[in-house]
Amino acid sequence: MVLTREVKPPLILINFKAYQEATGKRALSLAKTAEKVSKDTGVCFGVAPQYVDIYLLAQSVEIPVFAQHVDPITYGAFTGYVLPEAVKEVGAIGTLINHSERRLLLSDVDAAIRRAKEVGLLTIVCTNNPNVSVAAATLNPWSVAIEPPELIGQGRAVSKVKPEVVSESVERIKRVNRDVIVLCGAGIMNGDDVHAALKLKAEGVLLASGVVKAKDPEAKMRDLASGVLKASS
Amino acid sequence: MVLTREVKPPLILINFKAYQEATGKRALSLAKTAEKVSKDTGVCFGVAPQYVDIYLLAQSVEIPVFAQHVDPITYGAFTGYVLPEAVKEVGAIGTLINHSERRLLLSDVDAAIRRAKEVGLLTIVCTNNPNVSVAAATLNPWSVAIEPPELIGQGRAVSKVKPEVVSESVERIKRVNRDVIVLCGAGIMNGDDVHAALKLKAEGVLLASGVVKAKDPEAKMRDLASGVLKASS
Amino acid sequence: MVLTREVKPPLILINFKAYQEATGKRALSLAKTAEKVSKDTGVCFGVAPQYVDIYLLAQSVEIPVFAQHVDPITYGAFTGYVLPEAVKEVGAIGTLINHSERRLLLSDVDAAIRRAKEVGLLTIVCTNNPNVSVAAATLNPWSVAIEPPELIGQGRAVSKVKPEVVSESVERIKRVNRDVIVLCGAGIMNGDDVHAALKLKAEGVLLASGVVKAKDPEAKMRDLASGVLKASS
Amino acid sequence: MVLTREVKPPLILINFKAYQEATGKRALSLAKTAEKVSKDTGVCFGVAPQYVDIYLLAQSVEIPVFAQHVDPITYGAFTGYVLPEAVKEVGAIGTLINHSERRLLLSDVDAAIRRAKEVGLLTIVCTNNPNVSVAAATLNPWSVAIEPPELIGQGRAVSKVKPEVVSESVERIKRVNRDVIVLCGAGIMNGDDVHAALKLKAEGVLLASGVVKAKDPEAKMRDLASGVLKASS
Repeated sequence: MVLTREVKPPLILINFKAYQEATGKRALSLAKTAEKVSKDTGVCFGVAPQYVDIYLLAQSVEIPVFAQHVDPITYGAFTGYVLPEAVKEVGAIGTLINHSERRLLLSDVDAAIRRAKEVGLLTIVCTNNPNVSVAAATLNPWSVAIEPPELIGQGRAVSKVKPEVVSESVERIKRVNRDVIVLCGAGIMNGDDVHAALKLKAEGVLLASGVVKAKDPEAKMRDLASGVLKASS
Repeated sequence: MVLTREVKPPLILINFKAYQEATGKRALSLAKTAEKVSKDTGVCFGVAPQYVDIYLLAQSVEIPVFAQHVDPITYGAFTGYVLPEAVKEVGAIGTLINHSERRLLLSDVDAAIRRAKEVGLLTIVCTNNPNVSVAAATLNPWSVAIEPPELIGQGRAVSKVKPEVVSESVERIKRVNRDVIVLCGAGIMNGDDVHAALKLKAEGVLLASGVVKAKDPEAKMRDLASGVLKASS
Repeated sequence: MVLTREVKPPLILINFKAYQEATGKRALSLAKTAEKVSKDTGVCFGVAPQYVDIYLLAQSVEIPVFAQHVDPITYGAFTGYVLPEAVKEVGAIGTLINHSERRLLLSDVDAAIRRAKEVGLLTIVCTNNPNVSVAAATLNPWSVAIEPPELIGQGRAVSKVKPEVVSESVERIKRVNRDVIVLCGAGIMNGDDVHAALKLKAEGVLLASGVVKAKDPEAKMRDLASGVLKASS
Repeated sequence: MVLTREVKPPLILINFKAYQEATGKRALSLAKTAEKVSKDTGVCFGVAPQYVDIYLLAQSVEIPVFAQHVDPITYGAFTGYVLPEAVKEVGAIGTLINHSERRLLLSDVDAAIRRAKEVGLLTIVCTNNPNVSVAAATLNPWSVAIEPPELIGQGRAVSKVKPEVVSESVERIKRVNRDVIVLCGAGIMNGDDVHAALKLKAEGVLLASGVVKAKDPEAKMRDLASGVLKASS
């Protein structure tokens, strides 16, 4: 497979959060593993490292790198904020917006989507339920990722435990905005969970500890990829 | 002069904010200019770029690089937050805390100072008046930077327009915590402003647009350095 | 006219903000004036006083009283928050949510609407542009109030200066949720502005300084009411 | 005893939070109970109800009523904020500031103290550890209330489980500002806990669920009062 920084759904996006196993050198190592598995399997993996690690990772791997957040600002006096232009310049191709650990004001979700699109970043808006997913979809992001907060980091996959949340979100989102890519997350741990998500018409998954905290992240990634391959076979 | 990433006060710290002239490649160029002027004059310059630019700048220049902010978190599930360990690993030697554009909760100022110190980052707590400066100093940061918000970006130097704010802050801070380095900022534009600040017993200055927006940043930095040299002669 | 605390659109809702002319005793006086004008003209006026003034006003006047904000909380350990049940118990019939001066997280707009509805409060979600208005409407509030922030408090009425913002919001909101009452605000100063708003199919207006800061609030209210009467004649 | 709205330390301050047992009519009932116990025992009780309940309680009882929070604002366009003047006008004599459930920015703690003092409100700044307590004390509040967050609502009294936190706070606060009244809170459940607090030189206690959730709040209050009486005997 010819690797690319472009996203080809289905997407398996690994959020590095601020985990020790995914900071600095270990972030680089994990991203290289994802690149290798992506190359071997043909399944699209993306990574979302911490801000300070974006530059090195984007220089070093040929898979999509996302920021974990951007602020709805333009160039100016915004000390400590995350400027979309700066995130783009260091090599990210997109960004999470409104992650459950980094919620935004409604007006800022709208503004962050617009700002990110202006600079050419893909936008993945995280949401907590079908209602909020629909609201987010009306704001024209590239993608909405539905993640029921009560399942995040709990090891029980949303696609297995609450399949109706995924299917309802897909259906209602597509009705208001058919161009939006729907991802799901929370509790995704293995290929079966990914397969279940894709069968519910999600176009990818968002996960974090399932990979980052795994004893053997490469084996875990290969297992996740098998869920995509099984769904497309 | 042998350059070093160590801080040798008096310090001239340039906050890059999210200015266009100080993002990405232009951030690198500005940092190299600061390095050159530091080398030529022997005056200690530091830079505080955006998060995503820290890695490249810290790799490329031999002057102190600061983050603009860190969050009071440890390793864990903190998507979109700024982890002190990650900031340290990419080469920053310190961080601003509580900048006027990125104020923190009182309890988080305390926690951020402790977390930054744990990982070996210098802490510069920005404050808006002498009372708050004293409160900040009791929390044992490396430095307190007093910046009256009404003067920030206005082109009238705190050290000239409100000298009593600087001298009162220095005096009251030193009374509660003599180890704290006192910086001042807001409106610092030239060597005279720096000289005035040092005469008031500040041990350095914090500035942003004065350098970043200057037509000739190198000439501006040399002028600022002359204020330090004049004060120490 | 038999006065009532029920809302009969078109609604003229006066936000008291934290204005001196609309705090405490003066809030009571202003509410009584609104009640009198409502009685005389048959036009529905509502008031949104500060939290601490809700009780006295709701006891004293027979027009609808709204809170300026509620938090998306239930009974519990939430010191300093605004509990929907408590707001209801002191006599408010509804609440603003997400006012431009008190924006909420996207997930909290959703949760606040649901919590307010659970206790029987009408919900008016304030929004800043047509896109955000549509997103808000999908969350099933009683009403959406479109208020372009750049016009708030400027004395130029949204219904005159940006009529397309009002009409586009009405049209797009009704398409996703025909039950939502659409209000508009920002710069509403007189009966002509109200009349223009209603002609654009808004079902009421939200205003603050136009009445609160008026030399003769009663005359101002009568003028506003005339705009409603003209539109319905 | 002649009751008064003035505070005569030692103070037993009951925070009503947003508890069901302390909202609306039940808030009034609980405040009347506190008034009765205060009258019978001569011990100073205060209550901190929700914003919307301040008016009725302050009208109805002759004990000190506190707000749970005020914002550092003046009269103006601040929809949904809590104006010190408005809180004062409805009869509160003071306010909590920076409660663990409603933390403020460092600069806003300073500003809120100053604003509250300008309108004649007593200020009780809540803090989470001795360092932060000292910082708060330098800002010249009427009182600092040290409440280790890990003990809040846990039923184990700070004055028994972490006496050194109380005594260290008292000692260090008095050294920087001898006029500050030191309260302590977290886990205070009975007269013994109050007695222990006063023996550590605290001048009162702050509690919530211990009284509000008690099966017999009056008996609980009498028990708490006995701790004060024992300490002063």
